[in-house]
Amino acid sequence: MDLKNFFEPKSIAVIGASRNPRKPGNIILKNLVEMQYSGNIFAVNKKAVEVLGKKSYLSIKDIQGQVDLAIIATPASTVYGLLEECAFRKINDILVISGGFSESGNEKEEERIRDLIKKKKLNVLGPNCLGVFDSYSNLDTIFNPREKMERPKKGGISMVCQSGAVGSVILDLMAKENYGLRRFISYGNASGLDESDFIDYLGKDEKTKVICLYLEGVQDGEKFLETCKKVSKKKPIIAIKSGVSTEGAKAVKHHTGAIAGKSEIYKGVFRQGGILQVNSIEELLDCARIFERSKPVKGNKILVITNGGELGIIAADQIALHGLELADLSSATKEKLKGKLSPNANLRNPLDLIGDASDESYKAAIESGLEDSNVDMLLVILLPQTPTITINLLKILKNIYEKASKPICLVIPGGSFADTLKREAEDYIPSFSFSTNAVLSLKELVEYHKIIKGQE
Amino acid sequence: MDLKNFFEPKSIAVIGASRNPRKPGNIILKNLVEMQYSGNIFAVNKKAVEVLGKKSYLSIKDIQGQVDLAIIATPASTVYGLLEECAFRKINDILVISGGFSESGNEKEEERIRDLIKKKKLNVLGPNCLGVFDSYSNLDTIFNPREKMERPKKGGISMVCQSGAVGSVILDLMAKENYGLRRFISYGNASGLDESDFIDYLGKDEKTKVICLYLEGVQDGEKFLETCKKVSKKKPIIAIKSGVSTEGAKAVKHHTGAIAGKSEIYKGVFRQGGILQVNSIEELLDCARIFERSKPVKGNKILVITNGGELGIIAADQIALHGLELADLSSATKEKLKGKLSPNANLRNPLDLIGDASDESYKAAIESGLEDSNVDMLLVILLPQTPTITINLLKILKNIYEKASKPICLVIPGGSFADTLKREAEDYIPSFSFSTNAVLSLKELVEYHKIIKGQE
Repeated sequence: MDLKNFFEPKSIAVIGASRNPRKPGNIILKNLVEMQYSGNIFAVNKKAVEVLGKKSYLSIKDIQGQVDLAIIATPASTVYGLLEECAFRKINDILVISGGFSESGNEKEEERIRDLIKKKKLNVLGPNCLGVFDSYSNLDTIFNPREKMERPKKGGISMVCQSGAVGSVILDLMAKENYGLRRFISYGNASGLDESDFIDYLGKDEKTKVICLYLEGVQDGEKFLETCKKVSKKKPIIAIKSGVSTEGAKAVKHHTGAIAGKSEIYKGVFRQGGILQVNSIEELLDCARIFERSKPVKGNKILVITNGGELGIIAADQIALHGLELADLSSATKEKLKGKLSPNANLRNPLDLIGDASDESYKAAIESGLEDSNVDMLLVILLPQTPTITINLLKILKNIYEKASKPICLVIPGGSFADTLKREAEDYIPSFSFSTNAVLSLKELVEYHKIIKGQE
Repeated sequence: MDLKNFFEPKSIAVIGASRNPRKPGNIILKNLVEMQYSGNIFAVNKKAVEVLGKKSYLSIKDIQGQVDLAIIATPASTVYGLLEECAFRKINDILVISGGFSESGNEKEEERIRDLIKKKKLNVLGPNCLGVFDSYSNLDTIFNPREKMERPKKGGISMVCQSGAVGSVILDLMAKENYGLRRFISYGNASGLDESDFIDYLGKDEKTKVICLYLEGVQDGEKFLETCKKVSKKKPIIAIKSGVSTEGAKAVKHHTGAIAGKSEIYKGVFRQGGILQVNSIEELLDCARIFERSKPVKGNKILVITNGGELGIIAADQIALHGLELADLSSATKEKLKGKLSPNANLRNPLDLIGDASDESYKAAIESGLEDSNVDMLLVILLPQTPTITINLLKILKNIYEKASKPICLVIPGGSFADTLKREAEDYIPSFSFSTNAVLSLKELVEYHKIIKGQE
């Protein structure tokens, strides 16, 4: 199925382009205009002739010329009629933002819409959803104002997210933490297109390096399994399934109207589909970033390098907890490091460069770790608060990472200064605030490579 | 034991007050001067007559008048002699920042120091430590520059932390997240004073509402158990024990020279001592904030209020996971709420105010939850990215929380705007970025009250 019009339409009609700055239709139009979306944009408002300085049409029927994508942001009761108008106007690709359907007990109206979609063979995304954000084309139908919710930079992570609320949180978090997004889709009640349609489409998208899913419930399990089996051979799929508890499942039913289903069944489907299941938004984003640009993984032996001894101990505990191993440094590596580090440095693993470590001692330690064949991955923990570390270390790390043939994770714990460094480092190396998160993600990376090898 | 001089000395000598801005002695002196510490400050530098614009003494012997606290920040080899000088000068309270002892394989020198401390009956904090930060007196011996590491605001959380590295991370995090600190102590190799001495002292400190511990290993187990048994009856103690894995324990031995010990033994001691054990820095700080200013807890039934349905589902899953319960709203409450919320709002628990919820709908929902006798605690999840929520909601929440007789936790997930709100809200209500963390902390609160009741 070609879903190009949902990401790169040449012309868009915003139906329900309100003059009220708190209404979704207003914000969607504003985002498209302000982000200088490259296609034609038509505002449709049955009561106004001008919205946000743009000529407004009373009906979609009045628009001359091609409309690739119609975005509907009007009350639920109007949606059926508008879909009919779109069908009449030969607009096949339609995004319905409007809520007020099965999630509010209005199952009947949703059923009517479903039937119409089938009958007219429309491609409908929604209803009750946030829609789409494409960081490359700048198509942005997210009706959260930009001053309240930032948008992420360009990257390789694509996100298929049933819930608009979780979608908002994820996009906002990704922007704050400087994570790179390719495409975001919130599909809500999935009356037409569903998660599988988008997974399939993203599977063929070159810029998408990893696909993340946030699911309440899947309606067509067979289609989902077949799609994921196929796509996960080409790129990693990571998923969260919510409503796993009885209490949570009850809540799902009253939310998007989906049936949460037994969490054991989902576990089985995920395993068969080659999908990595995770448990929280943090874990989802952490894994996604490691997978997005990972170097090849050969084994599970980690070298931990730090300037804060205790931080190495925390990491060692985490490594043991997740069934990974601390690499034994070869004697050649130890020999090489002598004289390059502080005389009080501890030439073991965790490699403790101690509190007066300099940028240069980090460089020496990381380079010897990369050369040591006992070491499969590096976990570099940087306590940036110490007087002897400078921001120049980031440049050193960048140069090293570009040439490295092993995965490296960076951990920079602390406050505002640490966060600034972490965000900057994220441009070229997966960076974390806690080694807890970094080690868990490295474990998932090792697991994923086992799955991939099993499939070959 | 009176440890007042370690927090509110009337006069301080900084021995090793270097002119090099990267040296600990320089930064410590600078922090005391810039923070306008109210006591007398003497700089001691055997090679300079002036440091940072202050007259410098060649030796501590040259200082006229009382010195309540001596801070030593010189190489390890000089520490023994300086301790002797302090003893001669009748300075009993001494903080030794210097490293290079058992943690670097120099057990002999540490043994010599231990013997001297015993013989001369000195109160020594350290060596190999960050020392002290008291947010009320502004005593600050942390040698991380302030532009790299912020200091937390005044509050009720006291922190006893063996490791300087973890201590730096915790202080920096607390400042960033706007958490309130009373006193921080990093005690390093504990050659003189140990964790128990400080736990005992903080137990008697009115401003300390909760005591947090970060331990690698305890040397005097019996003293520790007795102290904690006594203190935990008066205020909560929360602890992390690092080096719980075999790999981690090995690393501990090479760090502060402590023996990590079997993690099972520590678990038992913690339980007997009335100490709540947690597993990560995040969890430590989350619990500390809930405990710091908790309202009384009567049971384990939670009302979840949100404007993002899916966020309620995540919370419901977490609540089930931790053995807590979703409260059943009374029919009186449901009746009260009719007409005050959006017509599409879902009058169940999680109470979904849906995406167009206003500040006023939150107010109505929280107030009826507080009045409903089926509800023991409230978890308020606020998706601030939606167009209809304004920052005025924070004021409403503040007024409600002041009068509330039940615990309330606030969750504000997202990016920069969400973080700003969260930090601001933290001034009066425990606030979190993820409901995962909030629910876990509420569970710990319920557990703690069970422990307390068991002791009564």
